[in-house]
Amino acid sequence: MTDLSTDTAPTGCSIIAGAEVRGPGAAFQARVPGSGEPTGPTFGTVSSDQLDEAVRAAREAAADVIDPLAVSTLLGAIADRLEQAGEQILPLADAETALGTTRLTGELARTVGQFRMMARAAGEATRRDHVIDPEGDALTEPALLRTTVPLGVVAVFAASNFPLAFGVAGTDTSAALAGGCPVVAKAHPAQPGTAEMVGRIMTSAVADVGLHPGWISIVHEQGHELGAALVQHQGVDAVAFTGSLRGGRALFDLAAQRPRPIPVYAEMGSLNPVVISPGAAAARGQALADGIAGSFLLGEGQFCTKPGLILLPADDAGAAIRRSLIGKVTERSPAHPLLYDGITRGFGAGLDAVSDVPGVAVHRSPAGDGSRAAVVVAPVDTLLEHRALREEVFGPVTVLVDVDQAQLPAVLDALDPSLTGTLHFEPDEATWATGLADRLARKVGRVIAGGFPTGVRVSPAQHHGGPYPATTAPLHTSVGLAAIDRFRRPVAFQSFDDAALPNWVPRG
Amino acid sequence: MTDLSTDTAPTGCSIIAGAEVRGPGAAFQARVPGSGEPTGPTFGTVSSDQLDEAVRAAREAAADVIDPLAVSTLLGAIADRLEQAGEQILPLADAETALGTTRLTGELARTVGQFRMMARAAGEATRRDHVIDPEGDALTEPALLRTTVPLGVVAVFAASNFPLAFGVAGTDTSAALAGGCPVVAKAHPAQPGTAEMVGRIMTSAVADVGLHPGWISIVHEQGHELGAALVQHQGVDAVAFTGSLRGGRALFDLAAQRPRPIPVYAEMGSLNPVVISPGAAAARGQALADGIAGSFLLGEGQFCTKPGLILLPADDAGAAIRRSLIGKVTERSPAHPLLYDGITRGFGAGLDAVSDVPGVAVHRSPAGDGSRAAVVVAPVDTLLEHRALREEVFGPVTVLVDVDQAQLPAVLDALDPSLTGTLHFEPDEATWATGLADRLARKVGRVIAGGFPTGVRVSPAQHHGGPYPATTAPLHTSVGLAAIDRFRRPVAFQSFDDAALPNWVPRG
Repeated sequence: MTDLSTDTAPTGCSIIAGAEVRGPGAAFQARVPGSGEPTGPTFGTVSSDQLDEAVRAAREAAADVIDPLAVSTLLGAIADRLEQAGEQILPLADAETALGTTRLTGELARTVGQFRMMARAAGEATRRDHVIDPEGDALTEPALLRTTVPLGVVAVFAASNFPLAFGVAGTDTSAALAGGCPVVAKAHPAQPGTAEMVGRIMTSAVADVGLHPGWISIVHEQGHELGAALVQHQGVDAVAFTGSLRGGRALFDLAAQRPRPIPVYAEMGSLNPVVISPGAAAARGQALADGIAGSFLLGEGQFCTKPGLILLPADDAGAAIRRSLIGKVTERSPAHPLLYDGITRGFGAGLDAVSDVPGVAVHRSPAGDGSRAAVVVAPVDTLLEHRALREEVFGPVTVLVDVDQAQLPAVLDALDPSLTGTLHFEPDEATWATGLADRLARKVGRVIAGGFPTGVRVSPAQHHGGPYPATTAPLHTSVGLAAIDRFRRPVAFQSFDDAALPNWVPRG
Repeated sequence: MTDLSTDTAPTGCSIIAGAEVRGPGAAFQARVPGSGEPTGPTFGTVSSDQLDEAVRAAREAAADVIDPLAVSTLLGAIADRLEQAGEQILPLADAETALGTTRLTGELARTVGQFRMMARAAGEATRRDHVIDPEGDALTEPALLRTTVPLGVVAVFAASNFPLAFGVAGTDTSAALAGGCPVVAKAHPAQPGTAEMVGRIMTSAVADVGLHPGWISIVHEQGHELGAALVQHQGVDAVAFTGSLRGGRALFDLAAQRPRPIPVYAEMGSLNPVVISPGAAAARGQALADGIAGSFLLGEGQFCTKPGLILLPADDAGAAIRRSLIGKVTERSPAHPLLYDGITRGFGAGLDAVSDVPGVAVHRSPAGDGSRAAVVVAPVDTLLEHRALREEVFGPVTVLVDVDQAQLPAVLDALDPSLTGTLHFEPDEATWATGLADRLARKVGRVIAGGFPTGVRVSPAQHHGGPYPATTAPLHTSVGLAAIDRFRRPVAFQSFDDAALPNWVPRG
């Protein structure tokens, strides 16, 4: 096995079952956001054989005795190493994303925290959903003990907007490992250096803990062909993805068309409507305008939870919020560039589609080197008539619509499901809030009172998901403790004495 | 609304949102198993408009305030009415299935028991998976409360082999209702009269409890077109199916190809291998032969858990079991007819495919009016080479194979996943059992020690499922309390005071 030092810079390699491997396919380099200048080494797209080898090794790892404690130790070791490797990781991630050291430092801490939470959970993985029903009186009532087992090999597709927390060492990888599933992760081609470094760190932890090297592989590809082959690979048992609706749906379709279909847990972003009550607008309009701007412009709007639609009361207080938001955007200096070419193009195309809708007004921040944010003002009838206004545009834009209170329920009903829905209201408007919260709960994964959707707490009570098109798996979350559940399936043991049970099955 | 009396015989109607409706499409009648004589009234296939109306009414019902207690009351009322209606239901079911009153009486009791268990669970539905994480110290740690909400409208496809327990009032319907989801159930065309009667009973319970009539509709169709339209209907949110691999996969594919894909919970049967240890064969060969015969011939092998492959030790004791099973089948009188034409044809075709494999010996019970059972003896190499021997043949047949102990792991690895895997062993063979149980647990939903796979206890600890091709949803069970989980999805409330929470959200 190659020595995968974490002290040297990335070399442009994939890491397959503990070994550095150069992909012989299409070569590519990361580019500095904004300038487009190449940065870091040249990476090579892996070959089909290399992909096979990664999956084969992962299957071999999965065939080992299931030992939740070993997995827990691995997750803890990864957390420790990531925490200690800030000096190696952060400059790489900043060069490839321009997200800045402050944001990336926070994101690294979150990533480390995710692994620590999962390390604790992994030790209890077979205990979760553990149910015992002793033998009953009737012959038809044998003793049953239900526990869970790992689903198998998981293909993880890293997202670009959180190079660490949703990257190759992100929430999906930590949850799959915690569930006892080896991971073959496809790096995002915009951040290959960060992925290689993080991959080295995880791989060295696998080696030190003494687990099979097939537990973690990191593969690079420019394009989609190998990613598609990974989803179709007969040795893969589940797919986790964070990214666009188009990308997630493509993987979902491939997985559903397999001879043996497998689950695809795709988290695909959404519109994330925010509703402001008349009382809230009147009582704290300026604070709300500040909060809305802070949320939809955070990270240049490159969050799946970015609020893309603000429903304002059709009154003077609502108009004041609208004016304030228009002012904030038109007076804003051009800010950070968007993450990479593809997002810049997607943002441009999405904003064009919105701008083409008759009757909308688009207010943009001035031209310059960085990202140009936008606020779109649309009448409510136009929102209801034109689907373009109700679809996510990934990037720094939000749509403002004045809505009569009586029309609010119909407007919410017209929206596609989202990851989140947010309500701002005053204490004396609880009835307003209750009714709309009830409505939102039927179509979103998280309902927020008096806050903003960006920022997803990593918690056992979190649900970062929602009905399609927010995700392809409405029963599951990609953030928080329950993210593990995606990667384990139940198995019941009938009439087993303790002596005959496999040693990984919790007794009693 | 039509008065849906349960005192009269079936009239050949579908029941759509509380009203008796004649389908204008292809007409059909149930047929007496064996003789093929028509029985009961003529049923008409529903129209596309009638199907739309059923789904529209179900959506209206789903839009009502979510009240788990009302649903619980409904489930209890259905249980009471079914229990009291044995005199109406059992003769109808026996005429359409020839399963006999003893079996059907037991099945009705099980069906009633399922509704009672679900009635208790429904009252606690929003409490299940209820997790609270209070506000933390950091700004990024808002209070979270996670609960679950109904998935929406569920399409249920009734199975033929359990006309009651997996029929239109079967485990899927009871679980969907308990989860707060209105049901549009498609009756099995072999048992339309039973479905109409059971539908009347459920519908009258909906009316008496005062719920929206859209909660339950029962539609009839000869063929598959309307069933396909139901799965593709934009108003349907999930599908539950019990039946063949071909049928389940077809529905899965339709659901995956929708603009908005929806979950399909298809339970599709399987091979259900049984492994006999050398010690068990030596100690109680005759009892094992009796047990195996009892299990694979039960209900003429028309169970998704029928043991279709018996792996015997390659020794004298194993040979004695084989001889005993061959004797039992060749000396057996022709028994009950199979349930309907389609199953008879499928059994014939499946047995032909197995018989065509070179080197197998097929032993059949004598020709006569009823079903002809079969035992197939195959060498282990033939089993490994020919997929036909490793596939489920629905009906009274099982395959016997002598296996060297050293070869057992490889043989188990060569099998597709199943609902169940069974081990028979002696107390001093715990190591043998542990190793094979570990292996089976990786590819089946239920591992059984010293019993037989037919008979599925309805229990909170049950898991009636397994990886594909046993089911399309490996994380879920179709029997037992956890069957409800298929029909609810999580939702998190962030920073909500009790006053603003919808009233159906459990506090604290």
